Amino acid sequence: MDRLSLWKEKIEGRLRELFSPLATGELYDAMTYYVFQPGKRIRPLITVAVAHSLGGDENDAITAGCAIEIIHNYSLVHDDLPAMDNDAFRRGLPSCHVKFGEGIAILAGDALLTYAFEVLTREGAFKTLSPKDILNIVNIIAVKSGVSGMVGGQALDIGGEEDLEKVNIKKTAALFEACFMCGGIVSHREDRLPVLEEVGREFGLLFQLADDILDRDGFFLLLGEEEARRRAKTMYNSLLEKLREISLDGSEIESLVRLVYSRVT
Amino acid sequence: MDRLSLWKEKIEGRLRELFSPLATGELYDAMTYYVFQPGKRIRPLITVAVAHSLGGDENDAITAGCAIEIIHNYSLVHDDLPAMDNDAFRRGLPSCHVKFGEGIAILAGDALLTYAFEVLTREGAFKTLSPKDILNIVNIIAVKSGVSGMVGGQALDIGGEEDLEKVNIKKTAALFEACFMCGGIVSHREDRLPVLEEVGREFGLLFQLADDILDRDGFFLLLGEEEARRRAKTMYNSLLEKLREISLDGSEIESLVRLVYSRVT
Repeated sequence: MDRLSLWKEKIEGRLRELFSPLATGELYDAMTYYVFQPGKRIRPLITVAVAHSLGGDENDAITAGCAIEIIHNYSLVHDDLPAMDNDAFRRGLPSCHVKFGEGIAILAGDALLTYAFEVLTREGAFKTLSPKDILNIVNIIAVKSGVSGMVGGQALDIGGEEDLEKVNIKKTAALFEACFMCGGIVSHREDRLPVLEEVGREFGLLFQLADDILDRDGFFLLLGEEEARRRAKTMYNSLLEKLREISLDGSEIESLVRLVYSRVT
Repeated sequence: MDRLSLWKEKIEGRLRELFSPLATGELYDAMTYYVFQPGKRIRPLITVAVAHSLGGDENDAITAGCAIEIIHNYSLVHDDLPAMDNDAFRRGLPSCHVKFGEGIAILAGDALLTYAFEVLTREGAFKTLSPKDILNIVNIIAVKSGVSGMVGGQALDIGGEEDLEKVNIKKTAALFEACFMCGGIVSHREDRLPVLEEVGREFGLLFQLADDILDRDGFFLLLGEEEARRRAKTMYNSLLEKLREISLDGSEIESLVRLVYSRVT
């Protein structure tokens, strides 16, 4: 089994483990409804791949990545709500608020967001990190997912902001920045945080552009198909170039970049 | 000026300070809409009063208390939503979703919740606490406000749970437990956490009962006015007794207990 598949299995296992102490019931069912659906797990995979490249502990990277995955899932639950994107389906199944009701879906998102911070700060959550490192991880995840990051981007989006790149940098790329940066902290390479943040932003923008092309949405509508595909190719090449520059080429990070780009080629 | 009034002024000032680095705009306006309305600030006051009694740093207690106040305010924004309590007014003014729209209100709540964890984990946020202490504070706040605490209680509530005390312990008392416990951690008195948690629960239940009596709701309806008032008096006396037992009587904590009880006498 290749490394990415192996890591993905471990990520699935860790997610199950992280939710296992919780009391079951309707809120639990709503919280885990999206989390336990099959997904690409691309965010935690990035954190693990970066840590692997930089010599960080795999298990600690999985824990940080799973917290980000939990935050990603809360954002999906809230995004689908009638007052937001009003999506009745996700992955071919009824969306969370359709299945559980709007009130429980709002609370499930709140509970997931809070739970991400709970699992990050549990005693013994990380084996190779100091309390200071863990605080750093919590802070990066909070900054990148909050008002100055993902939630700020969602607000621009529903506010009708016309600068799509500005929206995407916050709404999509910020959480990918957190994935790359947490991989750096797990590896005790704070010196690389600025460049990991930059790569994370480029990765996130490529990811969103690929999504737009697949969904015939966003930049696809703005630029037209041909120009959108041309831009994706340019971004893909620039990202591979950057990985070479910072000696993270040839790694599973590169495979993840190829995976994202291959969806539109 | 008495100590509680002085602390309250400092709490107001710290809240303004904490939000000052944020970019203004619609999301910022929605986030700060409830936070900057005049309030009792009873949650941060508890944290400061406990820290004062136990010899902890006032400024650090204010910071921890303000994070809890921010979480309390996110819960108000989400509670008021049409899918939850559907309250069009709060404190005589249009509620957050009426003023800003449901989508922005959902995001404002999400952003406030995330921001509480951001401010707690900022470098230099606390002067007298170790990174381990801060992690402990973050974890307590996450546990008490999440699926096993406040959000769990809200889910029981909208699910029609009939055991009111069970709902109130989670929905209301859990965050008060966090207030008392954080005061203990700021004072480096981890040995007192169990008893502070217990006092916090009793305080929260008295607070909710007083609210029920004022709103002619909850236990007021269940027990009738006379029995509800009798129970509030019993809880009040038992709480003062407990404060004496653990030598926290005669302090501003006692004044806060009296303040809560005086609302219904």
